[in-house]
Amino acid sequence: MTEKNFNDIVTRIRAEHAAMLKRPNEIREEFYNGVYKRYKYPVITGDHTPLEWRFDFNPETNPFFQERLGVHAAFNSGAMMFNNKVCLMVRLEGNDRKSFFAVAESENGIDNFRFHDKPIIMPETDDPDTNVYDMRFTEHEDGWIYGLFCTERADPDAAPGDLSAAIAQCGIARTRDLINWERLPDLKSQSAQQRNVVLHPEFVDGKYALYTRPQDGFIDTGSGGGIGFALCSDMENAVIGEEKIIDKRIYHTIKEVKNGHGATPVKTDAGWLHIVHGVRACASGLRYVIYAFMTALDDPSKPVATPGGFLIAPYSDEYIGDVLNCVFCNGAAATPDGRLLIYYGASDTRLMVAETTIDRMIDYCFNTPADGLRSAECVRQRIELIERNKKFLGSN
Amino acid sequence: MTEKNFNDIVTRIRAEHAAMLKRPNEIREEFYNGVYKRYKYPVITGDHTPLEWRFDFNPETNPFFQERLGVHAAFNSGAMMFNNKVCLMVRLEGNDRKSFFAVAESENGIDNFRFHDKPIIMPETDDPDTNVYDMRFTEHEDGWIYGLFCTERADPDAAPGDLSAAIAQCGIARTRDLINWERLPDLKSQSAQQRNVVLHPEFVDGKYALYTRPQDGFIDTGSGGGIGFALCSDMENAVIGEEKIIDKRIYHTIKEVKNGHGATPVKTDAGWLHIVHGVRACASGLRYVIYAFMTALDDPSKPVATPGGFLIAPYSDEYIGDVLNCVFCNGAAATPDGRLLIYYGASDTRLMVAETTIDRMIDYCFNTPADGLRSAECVRQRIELIERNKKFLGSN
Repeated sequence: MTEKNFNDIVTRIRAEHAAMLKRPNEIREEFYNGVYKRYKYPVITGDHTPLEWRFDFNPETNPFFQERLGVHAAFNSGAMMFNNKVCLMVRLEGNDRKSFFAVAESENGIDNFRFHDKPIIMPETDDPDTNVYDMRFTEHEDGWIYGLFCTERADPDAAPGDLSAAIAQCGIARTRDLINWERLPDLKSQSAQQRNVVLHPEFVDGKYALYTRPQDGFIDTGSGGGIGFALCSDMENAVIGEEKIIDKRIYHTIKEVKNGHGATPVKTDAGWLHIVHGVRACASGLRYVIYAFMTALDDPSKPVATPGGFLIAPYSDEYIGDVLNCVFCNGAAATPDGRLLIYYGASDTRLMVAETTIDRMIDYCFNTPADGLRSAECVRQRIELIERNKKFLGSN
Repeated sequence: MTEKNFNDIVTRIRAEHAAMLKRPNEIREEFYNGVYKRYKYPVITGDHTPLEWRFDFNPETNPFFQERLGVHAAFNSGAMMFNNKVCLMVRLEGNDRKSFFAVAESENGIDNFRFHDKPIIMPETDDPDTNVYDMRFTEHEDGWIYGLFCTERADPDAAPGDLSAAIAQCGIARTRDLINWERLPDLKSQSAQQRNVVLHPEFVDGKYALYTRPQDGFIDTGSGGGIGFALCSDMENAVIGEEKIIDKRIYHTIKEVKNGHGATPVKTDAGWLHIVHGVRACASGLRYVIYAFMTALDDPSKPVATPGGFLIAPYSDEYIGDVLNCVFCNGAAATPDGRLLIYYGASDTRLMVAETTIDRMIDYCFNTPADGLRSAECVRQRIELIERNKKFLGSN
């Protein structure tokens, strides 16, 4: 390739990248449920990362202008408002399947996200992480911003030849600026594995409060019964005892096989809003959807509104990706003007946003009937709605 | 939201819904196999259900005009001609994952389906159903219209923590008008579980005849060998003894893992036409396809034509949905003008139609070579076809 060809390609790729970063997002007008709006384009993909993170720009060492370190996917991201912008802690995944973290920010939270100039350099404990992912941001009232994430390591007791056996634990780090992170010891609990651990933003009974997901195995929750809740006196050496199950798995619901906490709870006038995930099995594998519930302001472990069914399920091309049939949320941002931006990974490949308001979510949580659990009861709920409409519409 | 805004949204959503219901379906011209025509749009989706089944129209109780009870999916549906219309018993699934039944009808069976004003209220036995689905209509010569469907309940002997263990049985109900249903006791058989049970429309040896799918477990067929056949003297208390396997599962065919009956058999001059399903495993889970065979008019348990391979496999966007890579048929309607409309669920999300004629299906069944079972034999079949064509085309 001549120098001119090289430069032409670089110029073209830079222009296309810049145009993609600036592309306005569009509401999917064909989707209406009154609860939230869907957007057409992912807010972040691997392609959104700076070109300098992937390509060597020196024609002497990269004469074909080849990608040297691809970023394949961008998905499950923590979210918060920071310096008046929506800041995401994006889970990026290289072509090598390892995840890592990077901060991206946007004024409106819908499009025009830009990455900081480097990925996060996350310090490690004495037990090195093989893979880290799915960070939840918590702006705690103690003054720190915490990031709780999953750290995975090979299982030292794996059977010979079983390279997939792994142990998932909750990694903990904290920061004041989102850039420089102090790593703290991993969470110690009585469960063999922990995933989807989230730190509540306020003290409860003077202690730190954690949402957990105790499980026996790496994939199976085993006897693990759902989303747990536990208190902890110290985040610099976090240890929890008994985990109280506050949201159970239930047969023939969207959370039959597994469920786990998601976005850091959002404080509203009507209670704490929880946006979490549920998993069921089907003939093509596991199916992940997002659901919501609310807990009491004075006791965040006490459910006060449990709308039935999913809030967000895969839609259109969201079904397709590295892990099919999956939407997953570990971050939402409440903006000063009352909007709530729910970020969700679609099929472990790209990050989408659903836009709603706090008011709409409160209305949704308190006025969507709880799961009827059986077909006949669900039909009864629906007939009741139909009869009410008939009465109301007949009188108008 | 102001009253004007509320009314504006209701007006817009009503108009969009009405336009969608009236949208003419279109043949997929790019698909040709001479056996059947495919259509571009699903004949029914969850969005086809009346808005009054999903939204509360009262602005006082639903100020944001939110969906209160979503209908996420519409798929595996029974079908029959009734009052000169194609009537479907649609399997609908709420956002809460529970299935229920509702009748939709259309003049041409291809588009413009409309639901009755309410879902079916299916009576229960003393053992309440958790989930009911996949009804087959049978207009029996005894004068009743029967609906056989799957009823699922949690397995009382499940291991602790295993919330997915369930027992599937055949529920039975009957009607004269498709609206009011009388529930009869579930089928009693010697198998631990039953799914995909279909009632033959005529008496056989003076008895009711049932196509069955005996299986050991909820998902696994275990030693269950294929599609069974059994006689039964009374549908008000249906008990069957031995189930004769009339269509076996076979290694390295489209029905290696499971197969099961589908649409109620259609009587033709050349025999009973059966449109059923087969399942194989692959790296992304199970793959469901539809196949056909014919049995003798004087003995519906005796195969007389067994074309090899699938009749319908997922195509284009049919691959995508809640259960990927799946087409499934439990209903077909033979119209007075000789058409056969085959309704099939695509990936457990929406209902599609394939349009053919009885004549074409007889030709297909008797003239498609039986499965060669081995690559070399399948090549031999193909070479024989090529040679015949060479000879024929060379001489023309």
